[in-house]
Amino acid sequence: MIDLLTAANLLMQNDSFHILTHQYPDGDTLGSAFALCHALQGLGKKASVIVCGDLPEKYSYMTKGLKTELFEPEFIVAVDIADEALLGENREKYAGKSNLCIDHHASNKEYAENIYVNSHAAATAEIIFSLLKLMNVKTSKIIADCIYTGVATDTGCFKYGNVTPETHRIAAELLELGCNHAHINKLMFETKSRQRLEMEKEVLNTLRYYCGGRVAVIFITKELIEKSKAKDDDLDGLASIPRQIEGVKVGITLREKDNGEMKFSVRTTQDIDASKICEHFGGGGHKAAAGCSVADTVENAAKLIVAQAEKALEQYDKEKEQKI
Amino acid sequence: MIDLLTAANLLMQNDSFHILTHQYPDGDTLGSAFALCHALQGLGKKASVIVCGDLPEKYSYMTKGLKTELFEPEFIVAVDIADEALLGENREKYAGKSNLCIDHHASNKEYAENIYVNSHAAATAEIIFSLLKLMNVKTSKIIADCIYTGVATDTGCFKYGNVTPETHRIAAELLELGCNHAHINKLMFETKSRQRLEMEKEVLNTLRYYCGGRVAVIFITKELIEKSKAKDDDLDGLASIPRQIEGVKVGITLREKDNGEMKFSVRTTQDIDASKICEHFGGGGHKAAAGCSVADTVENAAKLIVAQAEKALEQYDKEKEQKI
Repeated sequence: MIDLLTAANLLMQNDSFHILTHQYPDGDTLGSAFALCHALQGLGKKASVIVCGDLPEKYSYMTKGLKTELFEPEFIVAVDIADEALLGENREKYAGKSNLCIDHHASNKEYAENIYVNSHAAATAEIIFSLLKLMNVKTSKIIADCIYTGVATDTGCFKYGNVTPETHRIAAELLELGCNHAHINKLMFETKSRQRLEMEKEVLNTLRYYCGGRVAVIFITKELIEKSKAKDDDLDGLASIPRQIEGVKVGITLREKDNGEMKFSVRTTQDIDASKICEHFGGGGHKAAAGCSVADTVENAAKLIVAQAEKALEQYDKEKEQKI
Repeated sequence: MIDLLTAANLLMQNDSFHILTHQYPDGDTLGSAFALCHALQGLGKKASVIVCGDLPEKYSYMTKGLKTELFEPEFIVAVDIADEALLGENREKYAGKSNLCIDHHASNKEYAENIYVNSHAAATAEIIFSLLKLMNVKTSKIIADCIYTGVATDTGCFKYGNVTPETHRIAAELLELGCNHAHINKLMFETKSRQRLEMEKEVLNTLRYYCGGRVAVIFITKELIEKSKAKDDDLDGLASIPRQIEGVKVGITLREKDNGEMKFSVRTTQDIDASKICEHFGGGGHKAAAGCSVADTVENAAKLIVAQAEKALEQYDKEKEQKI
């Protein structure tokens, strides 16, 4: 682990950079990378962001004003990448070659020559913001837009528990720098593809309640995915639907995989341990969000997981009684 | 108009207060009122929040630790109420009696004896936060929770264009004061009633596209409302669904009223004027959000409004061409 000033010096001392992002790129890896790229080009250096696959259209504003050229870099920076396995299609070319990794994941595998990880940062983009200050880079409007995107997307627009006072202070500075926050938020949080909406509709049609409404399950079958022409992107976030329902303590998403297995995503409210429910099937995860797979039919698999959810609820009721 | 210090002094000089909120109470009117009530009771004064109807369950945490007693107040404060018409069931008792109004609506009707309006504040709760500082009130955790609720709900959790650097700076302070932001955000933004979800599903089933996908219409018929057992609360926000769809420039919500009329809510993206579309039917509103009513059948009414949307799109295309 190095400190952030050392990271800033490493960037100042080199002249040409490839900046790596993780696969299935999100607002934080892209916002961090493009902010850094704008900054380095602004300092007269060569810099290029390496995106896995095509840059999703909704992030295209980040590239405005960037020079694109092909060159062999002398220095490689990985941003928001906890593990080289996440390099995706760029793994073969770049694995083992990162000179600097800047990240906010506590689980960072420390694969780079120099590592700066701050797991208290809500987004890697927060760290990049501090880094650019140490490099005496003037935060332009486009850099502010990129940083804001990273911070907003990794916090559900300042909604989640990972938000700190510092997160809001950074946002305040970015707004003062003229970042286009309302437009970015509309793009990130209030725009849905037709396929996504179609998928939501279909998924809501499959919603079933169990245990007196305390367990809710949605069913994403292969048939349903084909019917709605949804891509993987469109399926993101569907797992959060069942637990959002008032009164639901365990929200379960069943997804039929191509190999015939049923994959469960389990989301719970306070005091119910999702990972325990999933461990019964050899899965795991966190207390509020866990997953597992079962090789069975849709109906049987649903019965099995609901039975475990019911047990967890009984346990919860018992503990609650004892407290009183 | 008085300044905020004068407002603070008025509150310090009096000893018993009724704090009025607007009808269909939201997070800002309630958060502002309960924050002020906690502060005044903390100063040893008598204070009570007057809510229109029952306090919605999701805001019940705001009352924690408050004394409730019946008394005739010497001073009446209206918070976040632009117009006495919004006093609802409390209009008869309190109209013409407000000694102080604190608000952030530019449209405030200035009905109170003393008025402080700051239309640059994203929420009235922002003003209350400054006011309590002027009163030297220590912002307790519960006061921080109330203020945060007002700020978060009036900004769509920091998503909208009304957010200023000051909004984020206040949020940073509130988090430092220990406010329960993640829990509040879950309650406000990630919890849906079963009826609301049922309504969303039904409404998505009615979605139709026109003009090559640039116009989308949802149909909220009386039959549909009855079927889903939705209350007015559950219908809030549905009008934002059609415009959220990628490619849609005009999103229209048709709602069948009890009197047989069809009410349209029109939401548009940049450069298309929703109020012009609605003016054709004697309605009006803002550039991005407007409304009107038509006395016709569902199908005919839809045809009429889509024809106007199409005209607006043609106008938009023509203007765009001229710019190039």
